[in-house]
Amino acid sequence: MVHTTHPGNIGAAARAMKNMGLSDLVLVSPKVFPSGEANARASGADDILASARVVDHLEEALSDRELVIGASARLRSITWPQMDPRAAADKVIGSGLRTAILLGREHSGLTNEEMERCHFLLHIPSNPEYTSLNVASALQVIAYELFVRSQAGIPSEVIPEDQRWATGEAMESFYGHLQRLLEDVEFLHATKHEESILRRIRRIFNRAALEEQEVHLLRGILTRIQRRLAESESANKTR
Amino acid sequence: MVHTTHPGNIGAAARAMKNMGLSDLVLVSPKVFPSGEANARASGADDILASARVVDHLEEALSDRELVIGASARLRSITWPQMDPRAAADKVIGSGLRTAILLGREHSGLTNEEMERCHFLLHIPSNPEYTSLNVASALQVIAYELFVRSQAGIPSEVIPEDQRWATGEAMESFYGHLQRLLEDVEFLHATKHEESILRRIRRIFNRAALEEQEVHLLRGILTRIQRRLAESESANKTR
Repeated sequence: MVHTTHPGNIGAAARAMKNMGLSDLVLVSPKVFPSGEANARASGADDILASARVVDHLEEALSDRELVIGASARLRSITWPQMDPRAAADKVIGSGLRTAILLGREHSGLTNEEMERCHFLLHIPSNPEYTSLNVASALQVIAYELFVRSQAGIPSEVIPEDQRWATGEAMESFYGHLQRLLEDVEFLHATKHEESILRRIRRIFNRAALEEQEVHLLRGILTRIQRRLAESESANKTR
Repeated sequence: MVHTTHPGNIGAAARAMKNMGLSDLVLVSPKVFPSGEANARASGADDILASARVVDHLEEALSDRELVIGASARLRSITWPQMDPRAAADKVIGSGLRTAILLGREHSGLTNEEMERCHFLLHIPSNPEYTSLNVASALQVIAYELFVRSQAGIPSEVIPEDQRWATGEAMESFYGHLQRLLEDVEFLHATKHEESILRRIRRIFNRAALEEQEVHLLRGILTRIQRRLAESESANKTR
């Protein structure tokens, strides 16, 4: 839960999680926590609140996550992979990936920057004239679909045992590396749409859901290109 | 909603209903109503509260109903037809019957007498160690399933209309371009696993299912890198 304003919503979310067999609650910079109101609304799910992790930045919450799904009320105009809760539950339960579901601020949801960390957006179907669910209610629906799907038995995808997905941390290092190369060759500075370009690149690789080994391969390519550029540059300087 | 104690739950229920396109709220002998807390939690669904009917007895609420479904947290030992929310939604939407969904007291649910008025009980699948959902959260899940069922036919994944996928031809040109760059920087020749590397790269981008515009972006990056390398090379040669 990112920047939650009302502690009551945190409590309600804890209850919804426990109802559906989830336990790992992370609060990114909540306005008020701990709180008596949260405990009252948790109504027996106090253990979820007691073990909740509070962190300052989203990065910390996602560092070990392999799949990140952002809940989004709006059908945004930007092209972003979007799923309903049932399709998302299929994806999560079938994959066996360490997953985070991101729930944004009560009034404004997730920022663009936060959405860039997501592999998918999750949109709950709703009345087009009144689309904004309460944040804990949205979590209730999502957790319900996950629970129903987890009870269904056979996974829809089989992941080979030795396959290891890249963690959020590894992906951030990769994006940082790629950005430095794009700066080196002045691809980014040549345009004022720098942020939009980085966002589009993230979307491509997030969608691909990279394995650890694939990140190694791609970073090997980046390193090789940088080395060739450096060799040429230094040859120029020594003439 | 039967004998609801907390006005906040009535407000949250109104919001959940409006989110899912429901409007006909009947309150059987609520403890507190109307209430500022209900309006605060309704958060824009005040119209549902304003038009809510308040009655003294369940009979009045059900007088024109053809199908009555009671929400029940417990899997009761008594033999009673029981459905999960999805099956209930199938039943309701498919039947065209005037239906009531009964939600009981926060702490004790529906009495046996009230259950006798029900054609079916609806049980939301949940963690066996913590089965009691908040009453408005339960309504949220049920209303969500009704809404999803009523929208059946709408795809679960949304692809923006103006999105144009890259053709096979465009992808082959892209892979060819990438391969030439990898040869230029001697990434490929440095290893004898050339084919396996190209295959792994293809797997990454195929999985991402690139749009036409994304292929343009990636090829722009490749071209930029090649140009920088060429500039450095020619500067070397002219010395």
